[in-house]
Amino acid sequence: FRTGHGYDVHAFEPGDHVILCGVKIPHTAKLKGHSDADAGMHALTDALFGAIGLGDIGDHFPPSDPQWKGAASQVFLKKAVNEVVARGGSITHCDITLICEKPKIGPHRDAMRMALARIMGLAPDRISVKATTTERLGFTGREEGLAAMATATVRLPERL
Amino acid sequence: FRTGHGYDVHAFEPGDHVILCGVKIPHTAKLKGHSDADAGMHALTDALFGAIGLGDIGDHFPPSDPQWKGAASQVFLKKAVNEVVARGGSITHCDITLICEKPKIGPHRDAMRMALARIMGLAPDRISVKATTTERLGFTGREEGLAAMATATVRLPERL
Amino acid sequence: FRTGHGYDVHAFEPGDHVILCGVKIPHTAKLKGHSDADAGMHALTDALFGAIGLGDIGDHFPPSDPQWKGAASQVFLKKAVNEVVARGGSITHCDITLICEKPKIGPHRDAMRMALARIMGLAPDRISVKATTTERLGFTGREEGLAAMATATVRLPERL
Ligand SMILES: [Mg+2]
Ligand SMILES: [Mg+2]
Ligand SMILES: [Mg+2]
Repeated sequence: FRTGHGYDVHAFEPGDHVILCGVKIPHTAKLKGHSDADAGMHALTDALFGAIGLGDIGDHFPPSDPQWKGAASQVFLKKAVNEVVARGGSITHCDITLICEKPKIGPHRDAMRMALARIMGLAPDRISVKATTTERLGFTGREEGLAAMATATVRLPERL
Repeated sequence: FRTGHGYDVHAFEPGDHVILCGVKIPHTAKLKGHSDADAGMHALTDALFGAIGLGDIGDHFPPSDPQWKGAASQVFLKKAVNEVVARGGSITHCDITLICEKPKIGPHRDAMRMALARIMGLAPDRISVKATTTERLGFTGREEGLAAMATATVRLPERL
Repeated sequence: FRTGHGYDVHAFEPGDHVILCGVKIPHTAKLKGHSDADAGMHALTDALFGAIGLGDIGDHFPPSDPQWKGAASQVFLKKAVNEVVARGGSITHCDITLICEKPKIGPHRDAMRMALARIMGLAPDRISVKATTTERLGFTGREEGLAAMATATVRLPERL
């Protein structure tokens, strides 16, 4: 067993919705980024890459590469899942925390779990999505941006 | 095995003590919150909920619910532990980091481990409490608030 | 199995290089600290101490102790590794995330993994180093400091 973790931040900019863990949520701002700026999915992707020691999302999908402009982040997540599988591994569990004052995540949690489960080919009960605020402190508290943390537990065949 | 994580923040306000990991510590401020604002115990509770995919502390104990006003956070933690046990699971290990400039956590670490062990029905050597500062940077560095991170390793019976 | 985590921050100050995960990187600033201020190695050290419940790096190597002034952080990391081994444990996996706008971490990742592998007596494929920015938000975004997160998966012999 190996645990990897991920952390990702995106800034808010004018707009009318965010995409988080594959779910579109109406909001008074959008998240800025080269791709769809899905910080939750990016943190999870990094947690998977981290568990298997395969660099990070920025190596595999450089923001400077026009190929990934506006990309759906599920491309990134699927790549990480495939890399685990290619090593004979399996994903035991994923846990994601979205850190923001707004939008409210709770009403969208189940849709997020279903979206991630579908993309990852995993049972929804192996995927946890949580949310918290920073009580109006720091950049998330000032609603300048949104942060996401993730852990992934992966089972890899041990070398003999 | 599954690893969950948690993150929680509470702001300081005028007062003379904080409660962290179940231990009352004299301080020049208190932590603001609907409950006793024990960020360490909240992060740990979320790590347990995260490991079993059961939402987050805000779902189970909404801050908007007057029932939890001034609540001792051990109610939250016990609930999370009970949910693990109800699934035939066991808690292998917990690790908590308290992030603040002050108060000093080190002198209270052992009391915290004992308090958590008692609440959780776990051996103290399965509970780690650590502390760090952010070198006067950010909201914790400016002593506007205190942050806590936690990971929980949980053994769940695998489905056949 | 047990997962521990670590978090560490150091502020930038005038200088011409940083030391991260044991690798010297030319930069327009240095990291401030009593030791060599290697936040990546400190977070990893704390993750190992956290996995075995042995306090934190500040207990073992107090910044107030002149003995550790300018110390190479590998002394801290080796101590944590030795404590795992002394308990009959083994380190399954380590995952580190360096959070900063600059310097660029990617070009140094492999050197970092090799440096940590050598210090820890571990295969490099059990060590992951990742990087991310906070999109110019917060203290890392303002380049006031650098943060590091780590998780360590440790196998400990279970008590009968
Ligand atoms: Mg991103
Ligand atoms: Mg709280
Ligand atoms: Mg340090």
